[in-house]
Amino acid sequence: MSKTSKILAVLAVLGCASALAAAAQSTPSAAQILAESPPSQWRYPNPQDLLVMQLPAGRVVMELDPAYAPLHVANIKTLVREHYFDGLAIVRVQDNFVAQWDDPAGDDGGDPHKIRSLGRAKQTLPPEFTRAIAHSLPWVRLPDGDVYAPEVGFTRDFPAARDPADHQTWLVHCYGTLAVARDDAPDSGNGSALYVVIGQAPRWLDRNLTVVGRVIEGMDRLSALPRGHGPLGFYAHPAHRVPIESIRVAADLPPAQRPDVEILRTRSRTFQRLLAAKRDRHDAFFVTPPGKIDVCGLSVPVRKGPRP
Amino acid sequence: MSKTSKILAVLAVLGCASALAAAAQSTPSAAQILAESPPSQWRYPNPQDLLVMQLPAGRVVMELDPAYAPLHVANIKTLVREHYFDGLAIVRVQDNFVAQWDDPAGDDGGDPHKIRSLGRAKQTLPPEFTRAIAHSLPWVRLPDGDVYAPEVGFTRDFPAARDPADHQTWLVHCYGTLAVARDDAPDSGNGSALYVVIGQAPRWLDRNLTVVGRVIEGMDRLSALPRGHGPLGFYAHPAHRVPIESIRVAADLPPAQRPDVEILRTRSRTFQRLLAAKRDRHDAFFVTPPGKIDVCGLSVPVRKGPRP
Repeated sequence: MSKTSKILAVLAVLGCASALAAAAQSTPSAAQILAESPPSQWRYPNPQDLLVMQLPAGRVVMELDPAYAPLHVANIKTLVREHYFDGLAIVRVQDNFVAQWDDPAGDDGGDPHKIRSLGRAKQTLPPEFTRAIAHSLPWVRLPDGDVYAPEVGFTRDFPAARDPADHQTWLVHCYGTLAVARDDAPDSGNGSALYVVIGQAPRWLDRNLTVVGRVIEGMDRLSALPRGHGPLGFYAHPAHRVPIESIRVAADLPPAQRPDVEILRTRSRTFQRLLAAKRDRHDAFFVTPPGKIDVCGLSVPVRKGPRP
Repeated sequence: MSKTSKILAVLAVLGCASALAAAAQSTPSAAQILAESPPSQWRYPNPQDLLVMQLPAGRVVMELDPAYAPLHVANIKTLVREHYFDGLAIVRVQDNFVAQWDDPAGDDGGDPHKIRSLGRAKQTLPPEFTRAIAHSLPWVRLPDGDVYAPEVGFTRDFPAARDPADHQTWLVHCYGTLAVARDDAPDSGNGSALYVVIGQAPRWLDRNLTVVGRVIEGMDRLSALPRGHGPLGFYAHPAHRVPIESIRVAADLPPAQRPDVEILRTRSRTFQRLLAAKRDRHDAFFVTPPGKIDVCGLSVPVRKGPRP
């Protein structure tokens, strides 16, 4: 929201230490904090939990979390390894809501005789809307509360929530969240239809759908797609659909083709500094530091990194 | 997030009463509630407070709120009536943040000798980040709290917040919010550079920038634009910028060219029903009704309506 790009653009460029030194009395910028972070505070995602979706415009990389949705993650990987998604399409882009892909033959206007087999993947799965809190799940709690959940924070570097009263925890719907579409029956989601949030966090979906991960690269290849103008944002004409060339598990790609990304660990000192800087912002621009941060207000940083 | 479009698509179509009757035991859908609303619960926006921006892809309509930012709204209307914006451009589209337009000559890579005169509009304005609470301002309070503000709700059909302790109120940053970009000096915003939120509500900007209104039609003509890949989402090359053909005050257009939109009154029974349905959702799909709603979680409905 700065009027001109000149000053903030300089501050935003990673590693621009001399320009940043001038702002030493201010809250450090995110760029400065990230530039100062030691390499150990970043991790390369497990290539077994990384999906690479190839669209005509380029790739979208998603990290899955098998700790929260083990059955759905396994089913999605079975589908991916059968090349189930290759040649399917993004069929729905609803403004301020979701981009969704599936087998168009199952949608209105599709040819039901051409519905693709799920192969060895399961047709129905028990819902994984929440899971039990466990000591094995790290918890970086945010201090400012939440409208929807008793506690919010980050687990395994995904935005999440907890209800200590019933000992349940769940991944929440933020911008970039990847989740499993379903029909009315809670067990009708199997991962053959997936959606990504491209607008305001639809937190009312939490605990009603199985969240499996989030987009960590190429988000704008989904968020900037033309919106569908059929009901619910489905593309009104088959020709508008965006073809999926392929989806692969990164571990199945030759090492040189695996995404060169790393993710900031939310249990790191650097992440704590980022949270503090966003909550309690004192610089030349901010008049009223917000003093708060919401769980979808700070995306866990991702940067280009060396392949493992 | 429904797996197929068939069932929900039917329910989503306005006025589809027979299909909706089958769901009589469930929480009514938003479509059903809106279909049942009497005409008096809708209003045509004041054409004096309506901006029509013409882009190559079509128009974007924005409603201004002079009650919260009278000086900025007046300055923007002066600029518009001088045709200041005609031929300028959208210069910045930062994913999950904002789309912004201004005079490219004032940005990096622009020609400062070509900076357009503001004419009779003021160069600096006192900030209108908040204003005093007044009895003349309606207040539809939301019951579920907020991370950033003591109270949230709707005023004059815009999402807003209040702090009763210091008697201040302000319009908040939600998806579609229109606000005034500025430099570091709080009085450096004058309306010649404007931005619209196209991602997760950046609530940390509340009380730090002057919000002047929101987009009520054509939002996807901003949200689906290609993202800029220069610093802060500015377009890296001038050729990527999106030209603004014109911006006009609707009152200055021939009546037949004014937007044919109407806005649901947030003080209406229909809006209360919508809120209740979203908070306490009981239907075949929802397993865990959210029980809550956040201030950016329900956009005030807009529909095609008769011109006044």
